[in-house]
Amino acid sequence: MSNPRIDGERLWADLMALGAITEPDRPYTRRSFSPLFQQGRLWLTQCMREAGLVTQIDAAGNLIGRRAGGTAASRTIVVGSHSDSVPSGGRFDGMAGVIGGIAIARALVASGAALGHTLEIIDFLAEEPNEFGLSCIGSRALSGALTEEQLALCNPQRETLAAAIARVGGDPARIAAARRSDIRAAFELHIEQGPVLEAQGIAIGLVTAIVGITRVEIEFRGTAGHAGTTPMNARRDPLIAAARLIGWVSSQARELAARERGHFVATVGIIEALPGASNVIAKSARLVIDARSETPQLMEEFRSALDAESAAAAAAAHVERSRFSVLSDTRAALCDPQLREALRQSADMLGLSSRAMASGAGHDMAFMAGIAPAAMVFIPCKGGRSHTPEEWASAEDLAAGTQVILEAIRKIDAQVP
Amino acid sequence: MSNPRIDGERLWADLMALGAITEPDRPYTRRSFSPLFQQGRLWLTQCMREAGLVTQIDAAGNLIGRRAGGTAASRTIVVGSHSDSVPSGGRFDGMAGVIGGIAIARALVASGAALGHTLEIIDFLAEEPNEFGLSCIGSRALSGALTEEQLALCNPQRETLAAAIARVGGDPARIAAARRSDIRAAFELHIEQGPVLEAQGIAIGLVTAIVGITRVEIEFRGTAGHAGTTPMNARRDPLIAAARLIGWVSSQARELAARERGHFVATVGIIEALPGASNVIAKSARLVIDARSETPQLMEEFRSALDAESAAAAAAAHVERSRFSVLSDTRAALCDPQLREALRQSADMLGLSSRAMASGAGHDMAFMAGIAPAAMVFIPCKGGRSHTPEEWASAEDLAAGTQVILEAIRKIDAQVP
Repeated sequence: MSNPRIDGERLWADLMALGAITEPDRPYTRRSFSPLFQQGRLWLTQCMREAGLVTQIDAAGNLIGRRAGGTAASRTIVVGSHSDSVPSGGRFDGMAGVIGGIAIARALVASGAALGHTLEIIDFLAEEPNEFGLSCIGSRALSGALTEEQLALCNPQRETLAAAIARVGGDPARIAAARRSDIRAAFELHIEQGPVLEAQGIAIGLVTAIVGITRVEIEFRGTAGHAGTTPMNARRDPLIAAARLIGWVSSQARELAARERGHFVATVGIIEALPGASNVIAKSARLVIDARSETPQLMEEFRSALDAESAAAAAAAHVERSRFSVLSDTRAALCDPQLREALRQSADMLGLSSRAMASGAGHDMAFMAGIAPAAMVFIPCKGGRSHTPEEWASAEDLAAGTQVILEAIRKIDAQVP
Repeated sequence: MSNPRIDGERLWADLMALGAITEPDRPYTRRSFSPLFQQGRLWLTQCMREAGLVTQIDAAGNLIGRRAGGTAASRTIVVGSHSDSVPSGGRFDGMAGVIGGIAIARALVASGAALGHTLEIIDFLAEEPNEFGLSCIGSRALSGALTEEQLALCNPQRETLAAAIARVGGDPARIAAARRSDIRAAFELHIEQGPVLEAQGIAIGLVTAIVGITRVEIEFRGTAGHAGTTPMNARRDPLIAAARLIGWVSSQARELAARERGHFVATVGIIEALPGASNVIAKSARLVIDARSETPQLMEEFRSALDAESAAAAAAAHVERSRFSVLSDTRAALCDPQLREALRQSADMLGLSSRAMASGAGHDMAFMAGIAPAAMVFIPCKGGRSHTPEEWASAEDLAAGTQVILEAIRKIDAQVP
């Protein structure tokens, strides 16, 4: 028996092979529930079996490859991510974590090493936003958070989510059976999707928390008017209020981030002025603010200040704040400090630089953290780019991140009483 | 012979009758060059003939109703505006000036009063923006400003402007013949299209100048990024620069207007951030600034400051100002002070309150001012609203404004050497 080592070349080849299963005219696209998604899963199933795993689809439609454990077989260590993509996405977001998990299983088989715990490699169903308007469907169900209302959601073709889950092999009538209570630890390998690791030349990001996301839609209403004949002091221009708020969101987020009480960002990505003609003063302006924080107090402070500032901006521009609507509001999910420490020690042992950091994006582990100790390893991605065909991580970084998780699994496994 | 008096009831009835010629599903719509536009002109032709005018279509497609003069018959006094409308427009913008002109001719006939000058009532062709992307087509040609390049412009159906002019009875091959050098004075009655007269309770606006309009398109380019994973201090968000500029345009315009060196307004009516998703930092932001001034120096100062401020906003947000493009740039057209004084005295004589004011909107008189003394009379319109079905002016104000022009015409006519 030798120390298990990740086969970086095979990992890379598998990742490229999975990536090649894409809409040909729109690389890289493999939308959840689509025929191509099913084709990808057939390929993954074959790959899992070759790695010595027994495959199944659980009631929630998650694809699970399982290797039974020894002395602690009733407790499970999970490694997983997702194989679905956004339209015109990349080959790493999600895929790296599933293929990395299979590489871990393969390394264990190749070295003859056995775990006390049962090992499961999971391809969580439908992590990305989809036609049902609900992301993280598989991990949601696994943590017991998928509701009957959500199962009744329909896509534009009027198919219910329940029917779609059944179509990919799940059993929505028994959705509660997907909920797990046997998980000792859950790991996810993922590209950072941001610029920090690359910019700082650090190999491994140890995720402290997955941010909570609050989205607020604000609409200002004024009075449409002729851009030539309405004097400046007779205007009720809602775009003036919206512009002030856009600047404020940015400077307020900078201030909260600078406090170093955890990751904080806020973005206005949508701004719409109607009717949208050069010679007409707008009658309404709508914007959506996306704020993310790993620290609930910072988010509460931001929300409350946003409320006050948007009301003040409306008053100053003599317009009405006709909408202040919280579109979504999720709390930050904390990663397990013990697992993070095991990952940090593994990185040290392997001679890899590492740093603690929050995840600004949502992940399946945010739901897993609700039912089990969960942890994530980030690896650098080129230019911080993600959700684009240019998304890129190096074969070396992929192998290194996977090896770190493998070492941490062995540490956790060795802690069996 | 009695003093000629405008028949306000007839004027109102005529205006409503012309307004009724509209797309039935989209009142009030009578687009230039359309079959409905032609139907409106047939009605106007009949109306002009009943008022004792001899009608013709000139080479540029203007509909002209003419009454030959006496002692100064080689010199012409023009009263005119336009009968075309914007989509879903009103019944007053343009129409009031044509119907008012006919009412003047009718009043002269009814009273037995004769003018030394020849009188022409003109329905200028296609004043509003249209499918050829060129407004004020008839007055442009009449002032010699319609170019061969413009005649070659095509609508989406690939018809040239020249062909369209021929279709409504013009003779585009002889377009130069439309240019006039015989005009002693040109008058236009128009609703204010702004809130000032109504708010101040003033009956008559004496137009000092028709503003020059400068339109500038500015685009900022940054780097698209994940709204969760890109730290605030690593962002190149072009919307931050655009938002700053929107606020600046408004406050700078207020400052220039407050100097009381003539009408100044500036508006951002178009703002577009791409890709326009709540969870993506924008890669580009585009805005269009519409600035209007009757004082060329103010406009020059604004343009120069806009250049500097947009460059500074780009630098502060670490983005590129990828476009600073002057889309259009027309100079202010001054109305004739002598005609304005004649109008003012007429208003006084009739016991009507009046004030000098600039026109913030473009009008046919802006072109007429290039070849003849030109003047405009504004009357109040409800809530300052225009280019909408709710556009409204009272029958009393319409009759009063028309009577003021009639009196001024008689004054000017009496000045014959």
